[in-house]
Amino acid sequence: MTVGYASNQAEYVTRLRRIEGQVRGLQRMVEEGKYCIDVLTQIAAVSKALQGVAVGLLDEHLHHCVASAVKAGGPEGDAKVTEATKAIERLLRS
Amino acid sequence: MTVGYASNQAEYVTRLRRIEGQVRGLQRMVEEGKYCIDVLTQIAAVSKALQGVAVGLLDEHLHHCVASAVKAGGPEGDAKVTEATKAIERLLRS
Amino acid sequence: MTVGYASNQAEYVTRLRRIEGQVRGLQRMVEEGKYCIDVLTQIAAVSKALQGVAVGLLDEHLHHCVASAVKAGGPEGDAKVTEATKAIERLLRS
Amino acid sequence: MTVGYASNQAEYVTRLRRIEGQVRGLQRMVEEGKYCIDVLTQIAAVSKALQGVAVGLLDEHLHHCVASAVKAGGPEGDAKVTEATKAIERLLRS
Repeated sequence: MTVGYASNQAEYVTRLRRIEGQVRGLQRMVEEGKYCIDVLTQIAAVSKALQGVAVGLLDEHLHHCVASAVKAGGPEGDAKVTEATKAIERLLRS
Repeated sequence: MTVGYASNQAEYVTRLRRIEGQVRGLQRMVEEGKYCIDVLTQIAAVSKALQGVAVGLLDEHLHHCVASAVKAGGPEGDAKVTEATKAIERLLRS
Repeated sequence: MTVGYASNQAEYVTRLRRIEGQVRGLQRMVEEGKYCIDVLTQIAAVSKALQGVAVGLLDEHLHHCVASAVKAGGPEGDAKVTEATKAIERLLRS
Repeated sequence: MTVGYASNQAEYVTRLRRIEGQVRGLQRMVEEGKYCIDVLTQIAAVSKALQGVAVGLLDEHLHHCVASAVKAGGPEGDAKVTEATKAIERLLRS
Protein backbone atom coordinates (compact mmCIF):
# COMPACT_ATOMS: atom_id res chain seq x y z
CA MET A 1 0.00 0.00 0.00
CA THR A 2 1.83 3.10 -1.15
CA VAL A 3 -0.74 5.79 -1.87
CA GLY A 4 0.05 9.26 -0.57
CA TYR A 5 -2.74 9.20 2.00
CA ALA A 6 -1.76 5.76 3.38
CA SER A 7 -0.87 6.98 6.86
CA ASN A 8 -4.16 8.91 7.22
CA GLN A 9 -6.42 6.44 5.45
CA ALA A 10 -8.65 5.82 8.47
CA GLU A 11 -9.12 9.55 9.00
CA TYR A 12 -10.26 10.03 5.39
CA VAL A 13 -12.71 7.14 5.65
CA THR A 14 -14.13 8.73 8.81
CA ARG A 15 -14.53 12.09 7.11
CA LEU A 16 -16.23 10.47 4.11
CA ARG A 17 -18.55 8.54 6.45
CA ARG A 18 -19.53 11.83 8.06
CA ILE A 19 -20.21 13.27 4.60
CA GLU A 20 -22.34 10.20 3.77
CA GLY A 21 -24.36 10.94 6.92
CA GLN A 22 -24.77 14.56 5.83
CA VAL A 23 -26.07 13.43 2.42
CA ARG A 24 -28.57 11.12 4.17
CA GLY A 25 -29.56 14.14 6.27
CA LEU A 26 -30.20 16.04 3.02
CA GLN A 27 -32.51 13.24 1.83
CA ARG A 28 -34.49 13.46 5.06
CA MET A 29 -34.75 17.23 4.74
CA VAL A 30 -36.16 16.87 1.21
CA GLU A 31 -38.52 14.03 2.24
CA GLU A 32 -39.84 16.14 5.11
CA GLY A 33 -40.33 19.11 2.79
CA LYS A 34 -37.86 21.34 4.63
CA TYR A 35 -37.50 24.92 3.44
CA CYS A 36 -35.43 25.16 0.21
CA ILE A 37 -32.97 27.70 1.60
CA ASP A 38 -32.18 25.43 4.57
CA VAL A 39 -31.52 22.54 2.19
CA LEU A 40 -29.25 24.79 0.10
CA THR A 41 -27.31 25.92 3.18
CA GLN A 42 -26.74 22.28 4.08
CA ILE A 43 -25.65 21.43 0.51
CA ALA A 44 -23.06 24.23 0.71
CA ALA A 45 -21.76 22.67 3.96
CA VAL A 46 -21.48 19.20 2.38
CA SER A 47 -19.70 20.70 -0.66
CA LYS A 48 -17.19 22.40 1.62
CA ALA A 49 -16.58 19.17 3.55
CA LEU A 50 -15.98 17.28 0.28
CA GLN A 51 -13.63 19.98 -0.92
CA GLY A 52 -11.72 19.73 2.37
CA VAL A 53 -11.19 16.00 1.74
CA ALA A 54 -10.03 16.77 -1.81
CA VAL A 55 -7.51 19.38 -0.65
CA GLY A 56 -6.20 16.98 2.01
CA LEU A 57 -5.75 14.11 -0.47
CA LEU A 58 -4.11 16.43 -2.98
CA ASP A 59 -1.69 17.69 -0.34
CA GLU A 60 -0.68 14.12 0.55
CA HIS A 61 -0.40 13.24 -3.12
CA LEU A 62 1.96 16.15 -3.79
CA HIS A 63 4.00 15.43 -0.63
CA HIS A 64 4.41 11.74 -1.39
CA CYS A 65 3.61 10.36 -4.86
CA VAL A 66 4.59 13.49 -6.80
CA ALA A 67 7.62 14.31 -4.62
CA SER A 68 9.08 10.80 -4.90
CA ALA A 69 8.57 10.74 -8.68
CA VAL A 70 10.29 14.12 -8.91
CA LYS A 71 13.19 12.94 -6.72
CA ALA A 72 13.61 9.80 -8.85
CA GLY A 73 14.25 12.17 -11.79
CA GLY A 74 13.34 11.50 -15.40
CA PRO A 75 10.10 12.25 -17.25
CA GLU A 76 7.92 10.53 -14.61
CA GLY A 77 8.21 13.50 -12.22
CA ASP A 78 6.98 15.93 -14.87
CA ALA A 79 4.16 13.56 -15.84
CA LYS A 80 2.99 13.35 -12.20
CA VAL A 81 2.97 17.15 -11.85
CA THR A 82 0.96 17.58 -15.05
CA GLU A 83 -1.51 14.94 -13.85
CA ALA A 84 -1.89 16.76 -10.51
CA THR A 85 -2.50 20.09 -12.25
CA LYS A 86 -5.24 18.52 -14.35
CA ALA A 87 -6.89 17.15 -11.18
CA ILE A 88 -6.74 20.64 -9.62
CA GLU A 89 -8.38 22.05 -12.76
CA ARG A 90 -11.23 19.53 -12.48
CA LEU A 91 -11.74 20.50 -8.82
CA LEU A 92 -11.81 24.20 -9.71
CA ARG A 93 -14.50 23.52 -12.31
CA SER A 94 -16.66 21.32 -10.10
CA MET B 1 -46.67 20.80 1.82
CA THR B 2 -45.77 23.95 -0.08
CA VAL B 3 -42.03 24.00 -0.70
CA GLY B 4 -40.90 24.99 -4.18
CA TYR B 5 -39.61 21.52 -5.00
CA ALA B 6 -42.81 19.75 -3.85
CA SER B 7 -43.74 18.39 -7.26
CA ASN B 8 -40.26 16.96 -7.85
CA GLN B 9 -39.53 15.81 -4.31
CA ALA B 10 -39.13 12.15 -5.24
CA GLU B 11 -36.71 13.01 -8.01
CA TYR B 12 -34.50 15.01 -5.62
CA VAL B 13 -34.49 12.18 -3.07
CA THR B 14 -33.41 9.80 -5.85
CA ARG B 15 -30.59 12.12 -6.92
CA LEU B 16 -29.41 12.48 -3.31
CA ARG B 17 -29.56 8.70 -2.87
CA ARG B 18 -27.31 8.34 -5.91
CA ILE B 19 -24.92 10.90 -4.40
CA GLU B 20 -24.94 8.94 -1.11
CA GLY B 21 -23.93 5.86 -3.13
CA GLN B 22 -21.13 7.84 -4.77
CA VAL B 23 -19.84 8.93 -1.33
CA ARG B 24 -19.88 5.30 -0.18
CA GLY B 25 -17.95 4.49 -3.35
CA LEU B 26 -15.37 7.11 -2.31
CA GLN B 27 -14.98 5.40 1.08
CA ARG B 28 -14.34 2.07 -0.64
CA MET B 29 -11.77 3.67 -2.93
CA VAL B 30 -9.90 5.11 0.07
CA GLU B 31 -10.18 1.84 2.03
CA GLU B 32 -8.76 -0.07 -0.94
CA GLY B 33 -5.94 2.44 -1.29
CA LYS B 34 -6.97 3.56 -4.77
CA TYR B 35 -4.73 6.06 -6.55
CA CYS B 36 -5.18 9.64 -5.18
CA ILE B 37 -5.90 11.18 -8.57
CA ASP B 38 -8.72 8.68 -9.22
CA VAL B 39 -10.25 9.54 -5.85
CA LEU B 40 -9.97 13.27 -6.67
CA THR B 41 -11.64 12.77 -10.06
CA GLN B 42 -14.51 11.00 -8.34
CA ILE B 43 -14.78 13.76 -5.69
CA ALA B 44 -15.09 16.33 -8.50
CA ALA B 45 -17.94 14.25 -9.97
CA VAL B 46 -19.78 14.09 -6.62
CA SER B 47 -19.31 17.85 -6.16
CA LYS B 48 -20.82 18.48 -9.58
CA ALA B 49 -23.78 16.22 -8.82
CA LEU B 50 -24.40 18.05 -5.52
CA GLN B 51 -24.18 21.39 -7.27
CA GLY B 52 -26.71 20.16 -9.84
CA VAL B 53 -29.16 19.40 -7.02
CA ALA B 54 -28.53 22.84 -5.53
CA VAL B 55 -29.17 24.63 -8.84
CA GLY B 56 -32.36 22.60 -9.33
CA LEU B 57 -33.69 23.41 -5.85
CA LEU B 58 -32.77 27.07 -6.26
CA ASP B 59 -34.61 27.22 -9.59
CA GLU B 60 -37.76 25.76 -8.04
CA HIS B 61 -37.43 28.09 -5.06
CA LEU B 62 -37.24 31.15 -7.32
CA HIS B 63 -40.12 29.92 -9.52
CA HIS B 64 -42.42 29.17 -6.59
CA CYS B 65 -41.63 30.53 -3.11
CA VAL B 66 -39.92 33.72 -4.27
CA ALA B 67 -42.32 34.36 -7.16
CA SER B 68 -45.42 34.01 -4.99
CA ALA B 69 -43.98 36.29 -2.30
CA VAL B 70 -43.18 38.86 -4.98
CA LYS B 71 -46.69 38.60 -6.48
CA ALA B 72 -48.26 39.03 -3.03
CA GLY B 73 -46.49 42.41 -2.88
CA GLY B 74 -45.13 44.08 0.24
CA PRO B 75 -41.72 43.70 1.92
CA GLU B 76 -41.91 39.87 1.97
CA GLY B 77 -41.03 39.62 -1.73
CA ASP B 78 -37.88 41.69 -1.27
CA ALA B 79 -36.91 39.70 1.81
CA LYS B 80 -37.23 36.42 -0.11
CA VAL B 81 -35.05 37.71 -2.94
CA THR B 82 -32.35 38.88 -0.52
CA GLU B 83 -32.46 35.50 1.22
CA ALA B 84 -32.05 33.70 -2.13
CA THR B 85 -29.08 35.90 -3.09
CA LYS B 86 -27.38 35.05 0.20
CA ALA B 87 -27.90 31.33 -0.49
CA ILE B 88 -26.37 31.76 -3.97
CA GLU B 89 -23.38 33.52 -2.38
CA ARG B 90 -22.86 30.58 0.00
CA LEU B 91 -22.97 28.15 -2.94
CA LEU B 92 -20.43 30.24 -4.87
CA ARG B 93 -18.07 30.11 -1.89
CA SER B 94 -18.45 26.40 -1.22
CA MET C 1 -32.60 53.29 -18.56
CA THR C 2 -34.31 50.45 -16.74
CA VAL C 3 -31.72 47.83 -15.85
CA GLY C 4 -31.85 46.44 -12.33
CA TYR C 5 -28.58 48.04 -11.30
CA ALA C 6 -29.55 51.49 -12.63
CA SER C 7 -29.52 53.23 -9.26
CA ASN C 8 -26.08 51.84 -8.36
CA GLN C 9 -24.51 52.06 -11.80
CA ALA C 10 -21.73 54.45 -10.75
CA GLU C 11 -20.81 52.21 -7.82
CA TYR C 12 -20.45 49.17 -10.12
CA VAL C 13 -18.30 51.13 -12.57
CA THR C 14 -16.06 52.16 -9.64
CA ARG C 15 -15.73 48.57 -8.46
CA LEU C 16 -14.89 47.38 -11.96
CA ARG C 17 -12.32 50.17 -12.31
CA ARG C 18 -10.68 48.96 -9.11
CA ILE C 19 -10.66 45.41 -10.52
CA GLU C 20 -9.07 46.75 -13.73
CA GLY C 21 -6.35 48.31 -11.56
CA GLN C 22 -5.84 44.97 -9.79
CA VAL C 23 -5.44 43.20 -13.16
CA ARG C 24 -2.85 45.81 -14.19
CA GLY C 25 -1.14 45.12 -10.86
CA LEU C 26 -1.05 41.42 -11.80
CA GLN C 27 0.66 42.29 -15.11
CA ARG C 28 3.32 44.28 -13.24
CA MET C 29 3.85 41.39 -10.82
CA VAL C 30 4.41 38.99 -13.72
CA GLU C 31 6.64 41.47 -15.61
CA GLU C 32 8.78 41.94 -12.49
CA GLY C 33 8.99 38.17 -12.00
CA LYS C 34 7.23 38.19 -8.64
CA TYR C 35 6.97 34.89 -6.78
CA CYS C 36 4.28 32.59 -8.29
CA ILE C 37 2.45 32.08 -5.01
CA ASP C 38 2.12 35.85 -4.48
CA VAL C 39 0.67 36.21 -7.99
CA LEU C 40 -1.79 33.37 -7.26
CA THR C 41 -2.88 34.98 -3.98
CA GLN C 42 -3.57 38.20 -5.85
CA ILE C 43 -5.49 36.34 -8.59
CA ALA C 44 -7.70 34.79 -5.89
CA ALA C 45 -8.40 38.31 -4.56
CA VAL C 46 -9.35 39.60 -8.03
CA SER C 47 -11.61 36.57 -8.58
CA LYS C 48 -13.38 37.25 -5.30
CA ALA C 49 -13.86 40.92 -6.18
CA LEU C 50 -15.33 39.97 -9.58
CA GLN C 51 -17.64 37.45 -7.92
CA GLY C 52 -18.78 40.17 -5.51
CA VAL C 53 -19.78 42.35 -8.47
CA ALA C 54 -21.62 39.38 -10.02
CA VAL C 55 -23.57 38.65 -6.82
CA GLY C 56 -24.47 42.34 -6.49
CA LEU C 57 -25.73 42.59 -10.08
CA LEU C 58 -27.64 39.34 -9.72
CA ASP C 59 -29.30 40.60 -6.55
CA GLU C 60 -30.42 43.80 -8.27
CA HIS C 61 -31.59 41.81 -11.29
CA LEU C 62 -33.76 39.55 -9.12
CA HIS C 63 -35.11 42.51 -7.09
CA HIS C 64 -36.01 44.57 -10.14
CA CYS C 65 -36.14 42.93 -13.61
CA VAL C 66 -37.23 39.48 -12.43
CA ALA C 67 -39.61 40.77 -9.74
CA SER C 68 -41.41 43.13 -12.12
CA ALA C 69 -41.77 40.41 -14.78
CA VAL C 70 -43.19 38.09 -12.12
CA LYS C 71 -45.62 40.76 -10.88
CA ALA C 72 -46.79 41.44 -14.44
CA GLY C 73 -47.86 37.78 -14.58
CA GLY C 74 -47.82 35.54 -17.63
CA PRO C 75 -45.01 33.38 -19.03
CA GLU C 76 -42.47 36.25 -18.99
CA GLY C 77 -41.95 35.93 -15.22
CA ASP C 78 -41.10 32.24 -15.51
CA ALA C 79 -38.81 32.92 -18.46
CA LYS C 80 -36.90 35.56 -16.47
CA VAL C 81 -36.43 33.18 -13.51
CA THR C 82 -35.14 30.40 -15.77
CA GLU C 83 -32.74 32.85 -17.42
CA ALA C 84 -31.46 33.95 -14.00
CA THR C 85 -30.93 30.34 -12.89
CA LYS C 86 -28.88 29.66 -16.01
CA ALA C 87 -26.71 32.71 -15.25
CA ILE C 88 -26.18 31.44 -11.69
CA GLU C 89 -25.15 28.07 -13.11
CA ARG C 90 -22.57 29.73 -15.36
CA LEU C 91 -21.16 31.63 -12.38
CA LEU C 92 -20.94 28.43 -10.32
CA ARG C 93 -18.95 26.79 -13.12
CA SER C 94 -16.60 29.71 -13.69
CA MET D 1 15.07 35.73 -12.81
CA THR D 2 14.12 32.26 -11.67
CA VAL D 3 10.36 32.15 -11.17
CA GLY D 4 8.57 29.09 -12.52
CA TYR D 5 6.80 31.00 -15.27
CA ALA D 6 9.99 32.75 -16.47
CA SER D 7 10.04 31.15 -19.91
CA ASN D 8 6.38 32.05 -20.56
CA GLN D 9 6.36 35.45 -18.88
CA ALA D 10 5.43 37.37 -22.02
CA GLU D 11 2.55 35.00 -22.71
CA TYR D 12 1.12 35.56 -19.20
CA VAL D 13 1.42 39.33 -19.54
CA THR D 14 -0.49 39.09 -22.84
CA ARG D 15 -3.24 37.00 -21.27
CA LEU D 16 -3.55 39.44 -18.36
CA ARG D 17 -3.67 42.37 -20.79
CA ARG D 18 -6.55 40.65 -22.59
CA ILE D 19 -8.29 40.19 -19.22
CA GLU D 20 -7.73 43.88 -18.45
CA GLY D 21 -9.46 44.67 -21.76
CA GLN D 22 -12.35 42.40 -20.81
CA VAL D 23 -12.73 44.22 -17.46
CA ARG D 24 -12.79 47.55 -19.31
CA GLY D 25 -15.46 46.02 -21.57
CA LEU D 26 -17.47 45.20 -18.43
CA GLN D 27 -17.25 48.84 -17.33
CA ARG D 28 -18.57 49.98 -20.71
CA MET D 29 -21.41 47.46 -20.51
CA VAL D 30 -22.44 48.81 -17.09
CA GLU D 31 -22.05 52.46 -18.19
CA GLU D 32 -24.27 51.79 -21.21
CA GLY D 33 -26.84 50.04 -19.04
CA LYS D 34 -26.49 46.68 -20.77
CA TYR D 35 -28.82 43.90 -19.66
CA CYS D 36 -27.75 42.37 -16.29
CA ILE D 37 -27.66 38.81 -17.58
CA ASP D 38 -25.31 39.79 -20.42
CA VAL D 39 -22.99 41.48 -17.91
CA LEU D 40 -23.08 38.34 -15.73
CA THR D 41 -22.26 36.09 -18.70
CA GLN D 42 -19.27 38.28 -19.46
CA ILE D 43 -18.15 38.24 -15.78
CA ALA D 44 -18.24 34.42 -15.88
CA ALA D 45 -16.00 34.53 -18.97
CA VAL D 46 -13.48 36.88 -17.28
CA SER D 47 -13.47 34.64 -14.17
CA LYS D 48 -12.71 31.62 -16.31
CA ALA D 49 -9.88 33.44 -18.10
CA LEU D 50 -8.36 34.49 -14.74
CA GLN D 51 -8.65 30.93 -13.46
CA GLY D 52 -6.89 29.71 -16.59
CA VAL D 53 -3.96 32.02 -15.82
CA ALA D 54 -3.92 30.77 -12.21
CA VAL D 55 -3.85 27.10 -13.27
CA GLY D 56 -1.07 27.84 -15.76
CA LEU D 57 1.07 29.65 -13.17
CA LEU D 58 0.45 26.92 -10.61
CA ASP D 59 1.50 24.26 -13.11
CA GLU D 60 4.76 26.08 -13.83
CA HIS D 61 5.33 26.63 -10.11
CA LEU D 62 4.94 22.91 -9.38
CA HIS D 63 7.11 21.91 -12.37
CA HIS D 64 9.93 24.31 -11.48
CA CYS D 65 10.06 25.95 -8.01
CA VAL D 66 8.45 23.08 -6.12
CA ALA D 67 10.20 20.32 -8.10
CA SER D 68 13.66 21.83 -7.60
CA ALA D 69 13.09 22.33 -3.86
CA VAL D 70 11.93 18.71 -3.64
CA LYS D 71 14.99 17.48 -5.58
CA ALA D 72 17.32 19.50 -3.33
CA GLY D 73 15.95 17.44 -0.43
CA GLY D 74 15.49 18.66 3.14
CA PRO D 75 12.52 20.43 4.72
CA GLU D 76 12.35 23.11 2.00
CA GLY D 77 10.66 20.70 -0.44
CA ASP D 78 7.89 19.90 2.03
CA ALA D 79 7.45 23.58 2.86
CA LYS D 80 7.02 24.44 -0.83
CA VAL D 81 4.40 21.72 -1.29
CA THR D 82 2.43 22.90 1.73
CA GLU D 83 2.60 26.48 0.45
CA ALA D 84 1.30 25.35 -2.96
CA THR D 85 -1.58 23.43 -1.37
CA LYS D 86 -2.62 26.53 0.57
CA ALA D 87 -2.60 28.56 -2.65
CA ILE D 88 -4.81 25.92 -4.30
CA GLU D 89 -7.20 26.13 -1.36
CA ARG D 90 -7.46 29.91 -1.76
CA LEU D 91 -8.23 29.47 -5.47
CA LEU D 92 -10.92 26.88 -4.69
CA ARG D 93 -12.57 29.34 -2.30
CA SER D 94 -12.41 32.34 -4.59
